[in-house]
Amino acid sequence: MIDTIGLDADDTLWHNESIFANYEDRMAQLVSTHLPGINFHDRLIDLERRNVRIFGYGIKGFVLSMIETAIEATEGRITSEEIHTIVGWAKEMHQHPVELLDGVAETIHELEINYRLVLITKGDLWNQETKIAASGLADHFDAIEIVAEKDEATYARIFTRHDIAVDRFVMVGNSIRSDIEPVIALGSHAVHIPYHLTWDLEQRINLSVDSVHPHYTELSNIRQLPTWLASQP
Amino acid sequence: MIDTIGLDADDTLWHNESIFANYEDRMAQLVSTHLPGINFHDRLIDLERRNVRIFGYGIKGFVLSMIETAIEATEGRITSEEIHTIVGWAKEMHQHPVELLDGVAETIHELEINYRLVLITKGDLWNQETKIAASGLADHFDAIEIVAEKDEATYARIFTRHDIAVDRFVMVGNSIRSDIEPVIALGSHAVHIPYHLTWDLEQRINLSVDSVHPHYTELSNIRQLPTWLASQP
Repeated sequence: MIDTIGLDADDTLWHNESIFANYEDRMAQLVSTHLPGINFHDRLIDLERRNVRIFGYGIKGFVLSMIETAIEATEGRITSEEIHTIVGWAKEMHQHPVELLDGVAETIHELEINYRLVLITKGDLWNQETKIAASGLADHFDAIEIVAEKDEATYARIFTRHDIAVDRFVMVGNSIRSDIEPVIALGSHAVHIPYHLTWDLEQRINLSVDSVHPHYTELSNIRQLPTWLASQP
Repeated sequence: MIDTIGLDADDTLWHNESIFANYEDRMAQLVSTHLPGINFHDRLIDLERRNVRIFGYGIKGFVLSMIETAIEATEGRITSEEIHTIVGWAKEMHQHPVELLDGVAETIHELEINYRLVLITKGDLWNQETKIAASGLADHFDAIEIVAEKDEATYARIFTRHDIAVDRFVMVGNSIRSDIEPVIALGSHAVHIPYHLTWDLEQRINLSVDSVHPHYTELSNIRQLPTWLASQP
């Protein structure tokens, strides 16, 4: 019997990756004026993969990596005025309105009646707190956990802190790597609700979880969650 | 009778502001090659005061503000190659070794025997976790709280979460604004251990606390803390 639901935030409760993709597109366009035909995306991801271990997740590290990639790719031909524009994008991204995904508000209101809800999100503390406040959802959660990385150790710490029974917990999110695999490895349940975009660094890193694992479910919309929960033994 | 000690991290347990000041000096020097005689510091602080509400605290926001200030101050004469160097500084700062302040290790070892120790630090989640791990001190704390802002609401939330009695708690730190004033406002004790540098945005914002407040103590070195604690009624 599941009694506690962990909910991921970015791309599960509200749009996120689409905002990053939008600014990356602008950047690629800007760089292509100096270097037509460049594959900016691949160069950026290569650099992000290295930089994320130093900078962590979030907008500021993303923008610093974009600046670094653009300077290297154009061999310094990108101008400082253009870089000034990019720093402005970092501010726009931080101040971007929080747009809830379809069905989120209604489903959270329904679930909070019978379940303990814990928001579990990784990334930039300041930006996540800002978005949680702006979402209007904060009061519906019994606990909010903003963490640096969503791995088994992090989930285990959250279980201890909130007295969560492993077999009565389900994590709901869009990332196989961050929301699904670590909780299944711990013996909990996981519901995968894919977002239409997945950041390359969130791509499934191994295939330890597949669609036939008894603790794994895929839904296409969060509205299906209450019915799925009701069907659990 | 005090039973729980809250300890700030940056500039209380280890050097921090001196690292920021060092990179700001390099930046001022670089900008002055384009614009001799400029007061880079004042321009940077003006911008940081605005940007910190968007970016939050930490290295990445600091470096983005440095880049923005440099481009604006030099009217775009700073080159993209120089900006590339500055992005490299952001990485160096993240990977800077953690250097404990004099007396910290010994004092923590002594205090953990008889007190509950809670590390309370604000700023970038990823960077703070990295520094805490690198400090070698993590296992000596009963709890670690990395928060977005150190205000009364944050301390009150920490008190509730860890069952801390307001009148049995002392906060130890270098910032009047973040470590002293909010906890004294809540009725707790505070020990101020000044660092030789204070970031402008941490400067005392009002004078509600002064040296004659009965809950306020100033020490010059953390080594004095055990003796002070033993002298408390």
